[in-house]
Amino acid sequence: MGGDIGPAAIVGGMARALRKDKSLSFDLFGDEAVIAPEVARHPALARAITIHHTTEKIESDEKPSQAIRRARNTSMGLAINAVKEGHAHAALSGGNTGALMAIAKLALRTMPGIDRPALAALLPTMTHDLVMLDLGANTECDAQNLVQFAVMGAAYSRTVLSIDRPRVKLLNIGTEELKGTDELKEAAALLRDATYLPMAFDGFTEGDKLSRGDVDVVVTDGFSGNIALKTAEGTARFVTDLLRRAFTSSLRSKAGFALSKPALNLLKVHLDPNNHNGAVFLGLNGLVVKSHGSANPKGVANAIGVAARMVRNDITNKIGQDLDEFRAHAFADEAEA
Amino acid sequence: MGGDIGPAAIVGGMARALRKDKSLSFDLFGDEAVIAPEVARHPALARAITIHHTTEKIESDEKPSQAIRRARNTSMGLAINAVKEGHAHAALSGGNTGALMAIAKLALRTMPGIDRPALAALLPTMTHDLVMLDLGANTECDAQNLVQFAVMGAAYSRTVLSIDRPRVKLLNIGTEELKGTDELKEAAALLRDATYLPMAFDGFTEGDKLSRGDVDVVVTDGFSGNIALKTAEGTARFVTDLLRRAFTSSLRSKAGFALSKPALNLLKVHLDPNNHNGAVFLGLNGLVVKSHGSANPKGVANAIGVAARMVRNDITNKIGQDLDEFRAHAFADEAEA
Repeated sequence: MGGDIGPAAIVGGMARALRKDKSLSFDLFGDEAVIAPEVARHPALARAITIHHTTEKIESDEKPSQAIRRARNTSMGLAINAVKEGHAHAALSGGNTGALMAIAKLALRTMPGIDRPALAALLPTMTHDLVMLDLGANTECDAQNLVQFAVMGAAYSRTVLSIDRPRVKLLNIGTEELKGTDELKEAAALLRDATYLPMAFDGFTEGDKLSRGDVDVVVTDGFSGNIALKTAEGTARFVTDLLRRAFTSSLRSKAGFALSKPALNLLKVHLDPNNHNGAVFLGLNGLVVKSHGSANPKGVANAIGVAARMVRNDITNKIGQDLDEFRAHAFADEAEA
Repeated sequence: MGGDIGPAAIVGGMARALRKDKSLSFDLFGDEAVIAPEVARHPALARAITIHHTTEKIESDEKPSQAIRRARNTSMGLAINAVKEGHAHAALSGGNTGALMAIAKLALRTMPGIDRPALAALLPTMTHDLVMLDLGANTECDAQNLVQFAVMGAAYSRTVLSIDRPRVKLLNIGTEELKGTDELKEAAALLRDATYLPMAFDGFTEGDKLSRGDVDVVVTDGFSGNIALKTAEGTARFVTDLLRRAFTSSLRSKAGFALSKPALNLLKVHLDPNNHNGAVFLGLNGLVVKSHGSANPKGVANAIGVAARMVRNDITNKIGQDLDEFRAHAFADEAEA
């Protein structure tokens, strides 16, 4: 596994994941001089890890176009290549997202039936985490892209979150059938007819309904998805900042905070990005997981857990089967018409 | 002023606005049997109000296309017509947004230099409210539309929020110049060159930065703007719901809440939509303000205040002047090339 973020968090996360799941093993790509001391701090990790030394790495501000050209010997490039060559089941990185997507797409190629891969991540709600995709891989999408995202998101929900028949909605600016772009309306019509797919398609949802917890998968183009995810993150931080300001505004409120602290910790846990870590790049011939750049060991362990569940439940195959079914029905419908 | 929301909130809001600003006068369109008793509860209002009786109204779920056809004798249609005929300086409604936009656009027409009107509203941040537009009037926008939105948003910021030289940014999925759609990149280039406009254009912003308070006007197409605004609303509600759940989870946290309550009320005030009420439909030959459907008298009074400030500061004229300047420079640049 490659990682451009703090090696202490990455290695600590691996140790933590290994404690939960003894069958894991790791290939770690990076500067051995930096990594080895960290690994030494986790004796149990020694037998499960192989360090592949390289000092080259993709910088966090490097453009994807440049990253592709010099990927070969970087920790990120080597980690993805290990998946391509079948030496690893999944690659995980905490580095530059754009570069990761570009290198992964070029090395692993999109799987049959997928026109464009998508970035999926988990969003906390009142009840359970929902899967949202695409989050920025594709700024513009047609109806077929959106349908493929729905198939991939539902497979993620089934394999990672163990939801048998995920409720899927398209993100729109209204819930009425006439709202939104032509692409959205067409995708909705296609998904409404595809009742044989292992998902419950339920029309449109809106930005203010994302946190309700009444949907398992939210499908959107990468532009709107990125705007929605980041706005949700920013607003949650904004409200908790206001809350902090309120609690520190007087002695009395400080005392109230001290009393409420155990309860408020539940709120903190609920919103902590480390508990929802592990964005996934879906639709490639191989699994690539993106860890938050600022994830702690718990966050990295969660991202590793996401990768392991996808591998064990063979998500790539499940997506392929669902797409075959979709195409077979579409073909039959055409032949009938 | 027409209103399809509770007459008590509308009339209460008018009374409240009049207490602050004695020079206001109102034309109220609706069912006199319902309105008159409400007006009677505010004696000071009697000399400032004219009731125009009608029992016809646009329903909240009515499609804009249908609303247009039967607008003529509805409270909403009559209110907008009063602006068109010069009997009122601005129209305010708490009713169906889509219908309001459609009726207003048809009756008032877009002003010279504006291709498409836009819906603008206020968003709370850590420091001061920012203006965001478009929020759903136009699902797809080209670069010229976005530039016009920037001009209108800056004029709103100057006239309503008294900010001399508003900082303007375009909403995007990254802050680097290469990010986003072609329309966004072209709009950024046009605004960067238009240094003569009374605004400080400052490139791109992202969803997670909206609440920071380091920008006065955020410009976006109506699809992304609607997604961002609603996601921000939904997330703020989600976090405060979690907070409520935390505070009621134990006797101890209930005691903590009681102690912190005065401080937490500041948070509540900061986020209360009534304190940011008054979405504005900009770019028409006449002013139309949309009040939140669930606004209380304070919210309605704020929306009336927004309308009054726009009228007094002649926002329509200011937008027209800025657009003339933009076109004159564009013409000079072309002639030079």
